[in-house]
Amino acid sequence: MAKENKQDFVQHITPRSENFSQWYTDVVTQAELMDYTPVRGCMAMKPYGNRIWELIHDRLDVMFKETGHENVSMPMLIPESLLLKEAEHVEGFAPEVAWVTQGGVEPLQERLAVRPTSETIFCTMFSKWVQSWRDLPMKYNQWCSVMRWEKTTRPFLRTAEFWWQEGHTVHATAEESEEETQLMLRVYQDFCEKDLSIPVYAGRKSEKEKFAGARATYSVEAMMQDGKALQAGTSHNFGTNFAVPFNIQYLSKEGKLEYCHETSWGVSTRLIGAIIMTHGDERGLKLPPAIAPYQVVCLPIAAHKPGVSEKCAEVTSLLKEAGIRVKLDDRDNVTPGWKFNEWELKGVPIRLELGPKDLEKGQCVLCRRDTFEKVFVPLDEHFPEAVRKMLDEIQESMFQIALDFRRKHTADVHTMDELKAQVDGGYARAMWCGDRACEDKIKEETGATSRNMPFDQTPMGDTCVCCGKKADKVMYFAKAY
Amino acid sequence: MAKENKQDFVQHITPRSENFSQWYTDVVTQAELMDYTPVRGCMAMKPYGNRIWELIHDRLDVMFKETGHENVSMPMLIPESLLLKEAEHVEGFAPEVAWVTQGGVEPLQERLAVRPTSETIFCTMFSKWVQSWRDLPMKYNQWCSVMRWEKTTRPFLRTAEFWWQEGHTVHATAEESEEETQLMLRVYQDFCEKDLSIPVYAGRKSEKEKFAGARATYSVEAMMQDGKALQAGTSHNFGTNFAVPFNIQYLSKEGKLEYCHETSWGVSTRLIGAIIMTHGDERGLKLPPAIAPYQVVCLPIAAHKPGVSEKCAEVTSLLKEAGIRVKLDDRDNVTPGWKFNEWELKGVPIRLELGPKDLEKGQCVLCRRDTFEKVFVPLDEHFPEAVRKMLDEIQESMFQIALDFRRKHTADVHTMDELKAQVDGGYARAMWCGDRACEDKIKEETGATSRNMPFDQTPMGDTCVCCGKKADKVMYFAKAY
Repeated sequence: MAKENKQDFVQHITPRSENFSQWYTDVVTQAELMDYTPVRGCMAMKPYGNRIWELIHDRLDVMFKETGHENVSMPMLIPESLLLKEAEHVEGFAPEVAWVTQGGVEPLQERLAVRPTSETIFCTMFSKWVQSWRDLPMKYNQWCSVMRWEKTTRPFLRTAEFWWQEGHTVHATAEESEEETQLMLRVYQDFCEKDLSIPVYAGRKSEKEKFAGARATYSVEAMMQDGKALQAGTSHNFGTNFAVPFNIQYLSKEGKLEYCHETSWGVSTRLIGAIIMTHGDERGLKLPPAIAPYQVVCLPIAAHKPGVSEKCAEVTSLLKEAGIRVKLDDRDNVTPGWKFNEWELKGVPIRLELGPKDLEKGQCVLCRRDTFEKVFVPLDEHFPEAVRKMLDEIQESMFQIALDFRRKHTADVHTMDELKAQVDGGYARAMWCGDRACEDKIKEETGATSRNMPFDQTPMGDTCVCCGKKADKVMYFAKAY
Repeated sequence: MAKENKQDFVQHITPRSENFSQWYTDVVTQAELMDYTPVRGCMAMKPYGNRIWELIHDRLDVMFKETGHENVSMPMLIPESLLLKEAEHVEGFAPEVAWVTQGGVEPLQERLAVRPTSETIFCTMFSKWVQSWRDLPMKYNQWCSVMRWEKTTRPFLRTAEFWWQEGHTVHATAEESEEETQLMLRVYQDFCEKDLSIPVYAGRKSEKEKFAGARATYSVEAMMQDGKALQAGTSHNFGTNFAVPFNIQYLSKEGKLEYCHETSWGVSTRLIGAIIMTHGDERGLKLPPAIAPYQVVCLPIAAHKPGVSEKCAEVTSLLKEAGIRVKLDDRDNVTPGWKFNEWELKGVPIRLELGPKDLEKGQCVLCRRDTFEKVFVPLDEHFPEAVRKMLDEIQESMFQIALDFRRKHTADVHTMDELKAQVDGGYARAMWCGDRACEDKIKEETGATSRNMPFDQTPMGDTCVCCGKKADKVMYFAKAY
């Protein structure tokens, strides 16, 4: 990167208003989150993108452990016969499975699926591991990648291979599995809203949109800056749908054999796509501090002047000791202006500038990525605390801005015309009769799909937005990623 | 688990002296580290085994980051054409590759390997990512699982799928890649000796035993309690072996196109096998505190007596706050004796017992898993510190015992007879001429393979232990896992 390319650097990003989709792709590649590979539909996560995923992992993993879950690691290959055991499940996943048919020089007698999801292998092991009521609940999770042979690919949003976590739990009763399903939905909502600063609608999916094999699927749905929905996480209650074909039974306290009730739940690297499209702007990525690889980047101004480099190194150490993720950018082959652009593009929440004048005054400049506000802050004993406070403010402010955006782009609708207009850049809340036919018709006429039914089902009327017949369901509709 | 089964529980473990291999399998399954699955050669890591791997991950990941490495995630599938680019590499790995030949309903035009290792996909991306000397070094790592279609399987030691980390780095010069190769070997040695309490021999592999495609392979070799060697980690210097076929070039400061020099290095879930076979005893697993899922297990004695349960909960919280991994076992359906056996089997370093008498005296009992030594410790403000100190002592003592064992089972040999006798339960250090023919003959006649050449090459003579011709290489020989 030569200095004279400075202008090019910023121009590489297509304006959001001009082409949102191209803006997204530009940010993903220019911020060095990922790269395309010669493997069809599979991406490589570069260090910066991978680090965001690690931070998502670290935080969620704590939340999972706090709610009583343990991690395991299951085989990545699943024999076809296991995949076939639950009818709806196989129907949902078979068309997009990558098959291993040869091991070494020998053709295999039975094909092995590269896991598209792991219900069938978890269930196989659960049927072995669960014996008595004392073994329950069994609450497991794994972090891994899965493979779905998709035709179209978009980085982080839809790729053949993606990274995720999948929780799989076994319970004694229907009540407990429903409780777990909703508990994990709330964990996802908390995480999205507090750590990613992304407001989400939590609710129940329609029969059409639920997971293949589930009795009930719940989701958290985010809104991107083009008004489209992005399903950020799902939590499924299987009831005994898998326990019966996989024969997962336990001996109850009363000495009776009973079928178990199961759940599964997951979020994936899609969340990185959600972060980009919720918060990003014309200058690129804007990262919520909780998952920013660097929360602060320290830029020496006129680094050759006496004391500047030393002070920057000192301030960097100070922040590091305070547990703040900070990067000292002391490159001497690019200008400070170049660095400004680069770190804005990469979405670092706070830029810390320190030059000879600041040195004299015992201060530095903090520049917020979200508002571009600049403040002079004294380098005294309260300095790390001041930085921490600013990070918290950014985290909260990013959430509020996203929430305001969502408020402006969500509306109640009562007719198909209203619905059609509303989903052109937003969420529509409508009464729905519950029929698949109306869902299909809405999709066909407006391009919107049912997202979920909020837990607050206070009716807005009593007729279906589509067919006009009696309706008692409140449903969010939106175009979706 | 009923109380009356108590005796059975312990008897499940075959004595080490009787059948070391069966003892190993018993420990692995009884301690609930893993389980067999219906997927040929693939195991499931259960929560306890998986947690050990997580702790190994957490510590090594810090060491990798401290030495300037960043994590990335690469595709799990590799097109056959990439695998074919480096001749020795494909020869080494092709026979044990699992092949994806079908995606969804369509047969693939080119087969995709489930990665047996990722040099070829890393190199493909490096050729895109490396442009100028300013991009170098590029020091990446990934945590993932890999697949090698092995005929025989043994949990943690040899399975079709296993979990590992693979570091891949690119450098400007041969000196730098050699330096990196040896740096990471030292990181592995430090980790094995300090965190796993496993002494290792660090040295260079023979031409025969080096990695397919490497110029030089270094390894750390541990000694199991049956005197056999277990390769605990490897670090490879590729020179330009991959850079040439993959065209990984950089523009030097002088404006010349130069080939890059590369390394790779890895450790895997094999380390869990090494921990078991280095430290385990007749009662089961013995875990070094640094990677023990629970460092302390707290057992209430006569829990129904007033104050006992409360005090145990209090002590558990106290230790947790001090950063010690502690488990309160308050089950009321098994006896304390049953719990003793179970937690000994699971290798928890310290058992903390607390009953009514201890309560009176303001103390508890700490029982060391490694020595079975019991001490009474006052429950005062120094208590967490006392526990921490005991954990450190256990960590160090386990290393010293393993080191003593290794000293007793390593000897210099000068004849084939001596070598044969020595490798029947130990390592032989011998002079070797460097010829492959001698290595092959030694393997054939004694069952031992060359392990590695220590960095200290002070000669023990000048004739080859096998052929009697001039020899200038000091080599460790041993039977190996």
